[in-house]
Amino acid sequence: MSPLRDQAAIVGIGATEFSKDSGRSELRLAVEAISAAVADAGLELSQVDGLCTYAMDKNPEIEIFRNLGGRDLKFFARTDYGGGAACAPLLQAALAVTTGVADVVVCYRAMNERSQYRFGQGFVPVPVPNAETANWSWTVPFGLATPAAWIAMAARRYMHDYGATSEDFGRVSVACRRFAATNPHAWFYQKPITLEDHQASRWIVEPLHLLDCCQESDGAVAVVVTSTTRARQLPQVPALIRAVAQGAADQQMNMTGFYRQDIAALSEMRLVARQLYAMAGCGPRDIQTAVLYDHFSPFVLPQLEAFAFCPRGEARHYIRDGNIEAGGALPVNTHGGQLGEAYIHGLNGVAEAVRQVRGTAVNQVARVENVLVTAGTGVPTSGAILARGA
Amino acid sequence: MSPLRDQAAIVGIGATEFSKDSGRSELRLAVEAISAAVADAGLELSQVDGLCTYAMDKNPEIEIFRNLGGRDLKFFARTDYGGGAACAPLLQAALAVTTGVADVVVCYRAMNERSQYRFGQGFVPVPVPNAETANWSWTVPFGLATPAAWIAMAARRYMHDYGATSEDFGRVSVACRRFAATNPHAWFYQKPITLEDHQASRWIVEPLHLLDCCQESDGAVAVVVTSTTRARQLPQVPALIRAVAQGAADQQMNMTGFYRQDIAALSEMRLVARQLYAMAGCGPRDIQTAVLYDHFSPFVLPQLEAFAFCPRGEARHYIRDGNIEAGGALPVNTHGGQLGEAYIHGLNGVAEAVRQVRGTAVNQVARVENVLVTAGTGVPTSGAILARGA
Repeated sequence: MSPLRDQAAIVGIGATEFSKDSGRSELRLAVEAISAAVADAGLELSQVDGLCTYAMDKNPEIEIFRNLGGRDLKFFARTDYGGGAACAPLLQAALAVTTGVADVVVCYRAMNERSQYRFGQGFVPVPVPNAETANWSWTVPFGLATPAAWIAMAARRYMHDYGATSEDFGRVSVACRRFAATNPHAWFYQKPITLEDHQASRWIVEPLHLLDCCQESDGAVAVVVTSTTRARQLPQVPALIRAVAQGAADQQMNMTGFYRQDIAALSEMRLVARQLYAMAGCGPRDIQTAVLYDHFSPFVLPQLEAFAFCPRGEARHYIRDGNIEAGGALPVNTHGGQLGEAYIHGLNGVAEAVRQVRGTAVNQVARVENVLVTAGTGVPTSGAILARGA
Repeated sequence: MSPLRDQAAIVGIGATEFSKDSGRSELRLAVEAISAAVADAGLELSQVDGLCTYAMDKNPEIEIFRNLGGRDLKFFARTDYGGGAACAPLLQAALAVTTGVADVVVCYRAMNERSQYRFGQGFVPVPVPNAETANWSWTVPFGLATPAAWIAMAARRYMHDYGATSEDFGRVSVACRRFAATNPHAWFYQKPITLEDHQASRWIVEPLHLLDCCQESDGAVAVVVTSTTRARQLPQVPALIRAVAQGAADQQMNMTGFYRQDIAALSEMRLVARQLYAMAGCGPRDIQTAVLYDHFSPFVLPQLEAFAFCPRGEARHYIRDGNIEAGGALPVNTHGGQLGEAYIHGLNGVAEAVRQVRGTAVNQVARVENVLVTAGTGVPTSGAILARGA
């Protein structure tokens, strides 16, 4: 039994509005989201003594801490690889509070990713050649320079291997947008789409239509982690961190893993899945709802397979049978996902997993015990299983 | 008792040569140092499943892992704030191996900091204003734009508060260079200096002479961490991680903490000291030798005070009495420090602490039980106490 299992819990969640132009700094967004999360937890800002975030976040821990009025910061850590870090701060926080290194750890992500810069525009030339930039030298000079283009390569391989079609990817987008349509916090609130809308939307990079691509968003999300012992004295139903893990595997590269034996397999997510199920002591039948990272719809399919919700290559059938929708075997991205709610590098998905555990999601699934949440695909990644305390 | 105390150990150390022009990539330096460290530990590269480094390191974990021939990477984390991160990867590694998240975690730092870029040249203008760059906006536009200038502010305050002089700082440099002179791996091997040399060296920024400033270096260092249980089956004497901690405190800024009530106090190091002594269950009398971060000689003085080797303001007397030299009460930087051996962002100091625990340092201190090692000062920082296993 892992000494981490159920020892830490998410006790507070907070967020700003999700927009295309926040009109304020990323630092302010972060402080707003953290303040909301700490208030939600029934704690004081002065009790925060740990901060964890993504390597890509532009808000230094100490700038945030000073703006929160913090005093002694005892733990701070970052994880690289963009949205692949979405669940890694939970691992960091769980490690810290379980071992007493810190008591109250906040995980945050804040970005003006639409109004200030846009990931979708792709590779930005860098002045100094080094191992960080070498990754890109294998693809960018040949015109493969945007996230959509990198993902399209893997999507095309998945179609080739298993006979999936653009419609199969589209059903993911339709399902997410249906959930977003009933979520007042979603950018696409009350704006569902049909499969015909998906098919008619313009190509970004074949085989990806516009409606296969997640949003670009401004906003911030924060979650508060403390020990399960302490969590039981706080107002919210604790979302126990039953399992949490990271993974990079099999000739891993950053978005451009085209030199692997098996391009469409998501080896890194399979490694995360093995660790999560082992740590949680459970399997796919024990998960009632999942938040699967959906920067691009095609990668939801191999994630369903990596976590054994269906056999390899059969996710298109699983989806077509309605399993990922309301009332299905595994409703996926009940907040609308990054396709429908907002793209906050996956941390908004962690918040939704907490709401599902609490029973307060707008598209609440019945009798939730365990919720799976994953992070970026095609990059070194992470995942977690959150559970309702007994 | 902290559940981390003595649960993890450093079992291997490795490094490249330290130079001013390595003639090869930082990635290659990192892989060389890691390979040496893993061999020193009596382990195989294929057993590495965790990698921890500084946020500033330019070698992505996955590039290193692929070059090591690694398969499944289960843990990777970074810590920000330059040399303040020197001991933080040890905390990360200790957390991971203690909880079973990973088995063999390598901490590394590789840089061509002399031949490719030079920190000493100071602030590099950045294109995008954000909270990361805002830190610098309070000083750089007014001409305070280099590490030496930032440290000079704090050094001047320390002189004002306690009557310390340039000679007091110089004695630190002389002591470090004396140790370096007998260390064949040190850049300044066989090149000791006198206090007169120090005083005659040119001003960089008053009150800092050239010989108050550490080197700029090319090189890499790596250390291997595993559980203490496993460590006992490996060839080297384990350097137990008796205590390890991070700290940021008191209106912390990044090198430019001039708005604090007490500019010369190193509040962040005092926070680290409190945590380390509490976790280790020991005090300054239990430490036989220390590696104190010496990017600039003046900050060694308040570190001696923060760890209570002497009362506040009295480090100059403590140093003048010979305590930090060979045969003294607390020999400091027996490898020569960053002033004498090389500036590898403090990780070479961690390696020296391991050698002192093993009894294999070139300037070996007698009967070593506990070694203190610290990280960057003037920034959010970290520290560790390494111990010889019973």
